[in-house]
Amino acid sequence: MQTTAPTTFRKEARQRAEEALARCVTLAGHSESTTGLTRTYLTKPMKAVHRDVGDWMREAGMDVRIDAVGNIIGHYPAARPDAQTVMIGSHLDTVHNAGMYDGIVGVILGIAAVKLLKGMRLPFAVDVVGFSEEEGVRFSAPFIGSTAIAGIFDDALLARTDSQGRTLAQAIEDFGLNAKDISKCAYAPKSLLAYLEPHIEQGPVLEAANESLGVVSAIAGQTRMIVNFIGEAGHAGTVPMRSRRDALPAACELALYVERYGRCGTDLFATVGQLNVEPNVSNVIPNHVRLSMDIRHPDDETRTTAVTQILMHANSIAERRRVEFRIDSRSDRSAVAMDDALSDVLKAALRAEDLPASPLVSGAGHDAMIMARIVPTAMLFLRCKGGISHHPDESVTVDDVADAIRATTTFLKTIQPPTKG
Amino acid sequence: MQTTAPTTFRKEARQRAEEALARCVTLAGHSESTTGLTRTYLTKPMKAVHRDVGDWMREAGMDVRIDAVGNIIGHYPAARPDAQTVMIGSHLDTVHNAGMYDGIVGVILGIAAVKLLKGMRLPFAVDVVGFSEEEGVRFSAPFIGSTAIAGIFDDALLARTDSQGRTLAQAIEDFGLNAKDISKCAYAPKSLLAYLEPHIEQGPVLEAANESLGVVSAIAGQTRMIVNFIGEAGHAGTVPMRSRRDALPAACELALYVERYGRCGTDLFATVGQLNVEPNVSNVIPNHVRLSMDIRHPDDETRTTAVTQILMHANSIAERRRVEFRIDSRSDRSAVAMDDALSDVLKAALRAEDLPASPLVSGAGHDAMIMARIVPTAMLFLRCKGGISHHPDESVTVDDVADAIRATTTFLKTIQPPTKG
Repeated sequence: MQTTAPTTFRKEARQRAEEALARCVTLAGHSESTTGLTRTYLTKPMKAVHRDVGDWMREAGMDVRIDAVGNIIGHYPAARPDAQTVMIGSHLDTVHNAGMYDGIVGVILGIAAVKLLKGMRLPFAVDVVGFSEEEGVRFSAPFIGSTAIAGIFDDALLARTDSQGRTLAQAIEDFGLNAKDISKCAYAPKSLLAYLEPHIEQGPVLEAANESLGVVSAIAGQTRMIVNFIGEAGHAGTVPMRSRRDALPAACELALYVERYGRCGTDLFATVGQLNVEPNVSNVIPNHVRLSMDIRHPDDETRTTAVTQILMHANSIAERRRVEFRIDSRSDRSAVAMDDALSDVLKAALRAEDLPASPLVSGAGHDAMIMARIVPTAMLFLRCKGGISHHPDESVTVDDVADAIRATTTFLKTIQPPTKG
Repeated sequence: MQTTAPTTFRKEARQRAEEALARCVTLAGHSESTTGLTRTYLTKPMKAVHRDVGDWMREAGMDVRIDAVGNIIGHYPAARPDAQTVMIGSHLDTVHNAGMYDGIVGVILGIAAVKLLKGMRLPFAVDVVGFSEEEGVRFSAPFIGSTAIAGIFDDALLARTDSQGRTLAQAIEDFGLNAKDISKCAYAPKSLLAYLEPHIEQGPVLEAANESLGVVSAIAGQTRMIVNFIGEAGHAGTVPMRSRRDALPAACELALYVERYGRCGTDLFATVGQLNVEPNVSNVIPNHVRLSMDIRHPDDETRTTAVTQILMHANSIAERRRVEFRIDSRSDRSAVAMDDALSDVLKAALRAEDLPASPLVSGAGHDAMIMARIVPTAMLFLRCKGGISHHPDESVTVDDVADAIRATTTFLKTIQPPTKG
């Protein structure tokens, strides 16, 4: 179905990749900070991003609008006005001191793929979406952009305040938008044919496999907990070892068990990232340790079994050591499988372009998790250097981006709307 | 040798003990904080303490002076003017949010014992010393008072600043003293017959043994270290378990080894009291953990062997886990044995009063460590509730203080100066 010769297509994809990386650098200049990239939801630098992204969308042949929660949407019309829409997107907000590619490269790739269509009409419209808020930094609420588009935005969030005491409703107004129109952000599920999210892997699997791209099979489910061990403080030089009720070794035993448990399973991620000691003084026996646990797996039952066994072990540690064990908070998020049929179309496009199409699990959450509720969804992962993300060292190569642009364009050219009955 | 009948002596000791505890409460009112007891070196509340303690010393028949580093010294003359001096003392400064007895009770006990002599002249003078600085809070330099009296004060400390940027030299001047006179604080070693320091145990040994008093055999040596494990950060949901170079489990392994090692030995104290994780975020694999180690034992060789083995183990953990291990700082303090002959005199005094005289090791450092360099030194430990110290819950009973007053007074009455050749 390609309309250009393979060599020309490759050459043009490469040009679009160079342009795409330059655009990521341009957007990284729009930051709340002068020393690094931080661009949270509905801040001034997001206005500048919308101006640039809007220009690039229009240049690629799209009509541009900003919806009521600040998503930017470029619309590339279908051959027929009543056709469905294929959406390509990712997010434009960042974490604190972020890299230039997480989220952003997916949006830029979507624009590049549409530009490569050179006006060629497809049996569906293509909407490229730059979601306004995925990371959840400003209001401690991720996925504001995608939940609005999926029609499942939680209105209660409008009263939530940021660190400056500004409510979400006020922030929307400050940005020149109208919170009353949020319900109008929603797409009718029937109007959507597919959602594709290209995103950096944020992990080292593709790099280790020496492959530029991969197809996500599922987004892992996640359990997050904050737990505590509470013992008894005492003088490090006077309380005999056997009389101690030291909270720290109890926490250390649990952290090692979490790691050991994680290592035993396939696709299991088990991490203690946070650990705080009280009083945290070198000559005082710790009486309180608070630690986080983050457990992820693409299969929910495997994950909940892991959590149960880890908590049972925590209780046995506490009992043996005569310390108290307490769970402060727990949140569970189910795994989200990608759409098999759509992923097969994506894999076929990759194979047609002689590109790798190995399946891999996403340990991180993405807007695709939200979009999967209303539309068949697939994700394309790009290799990133060292698996590093959420860090200024985030890096992708122009070759890999060119591969991703070829894959995305070919995907658009091969996807077929269902024949009407 | 007692000059009063046993029952009278017991009754009077009990009265002095009630008075002593009331005096500890009075001194606890002289604090830098309105919410708890904090009284660091040469601060305004120390002036008030000197006023009260000076009054009580004079009432017990002593002449009072403040030396150039702020030690308060009550002098109770000997039968003959050329006699040596027995010193009884402890410190009057406190840690932050302290208890009322650590240090203070030793000074108050010394005054009570002298008061119980009721003017009876001994073949030596008795100097009761309230050392001005033992905890080392204000200038991160402990034992300022006792090193000055022992003639080993380090003049370089005079330029050291507190958290307000005030030098030690300025602090001495602010208090109305003259830093040029510090060398005059020193006692000639020959002038001293003995030093006795009564102090709360700060541990649970006497309470567990159901004994009010104990005699310290040695002050444990101590090694303090700050060590680091340095690995690699990464996303908790994407970096496979086996690819990780997580600094936290490495630190946890070491902390558990330190505890296990401590439990294997006798009189060994091995503690990780401080542990700091970076970046300390629940969904990021820790790349840096900094932890403290505090290792104490009354035998220096046992301690240094323990430290060597712990460091060897730390290196093997680091190698196995492909993380870096680094020592940031290390300080070693040798053990200090108490004087056997003087301790025997103290034990005899305790037995004469039907009091327990079991030997025990001090895990904490004391002014006695410094004084032992120039004079035969002994320490009397008082049981404290729950072994708690450096905390508002510090607690001693009036019965135990009465026992300590009887012990100290009888010790003074039985100690014999060497017969001149």
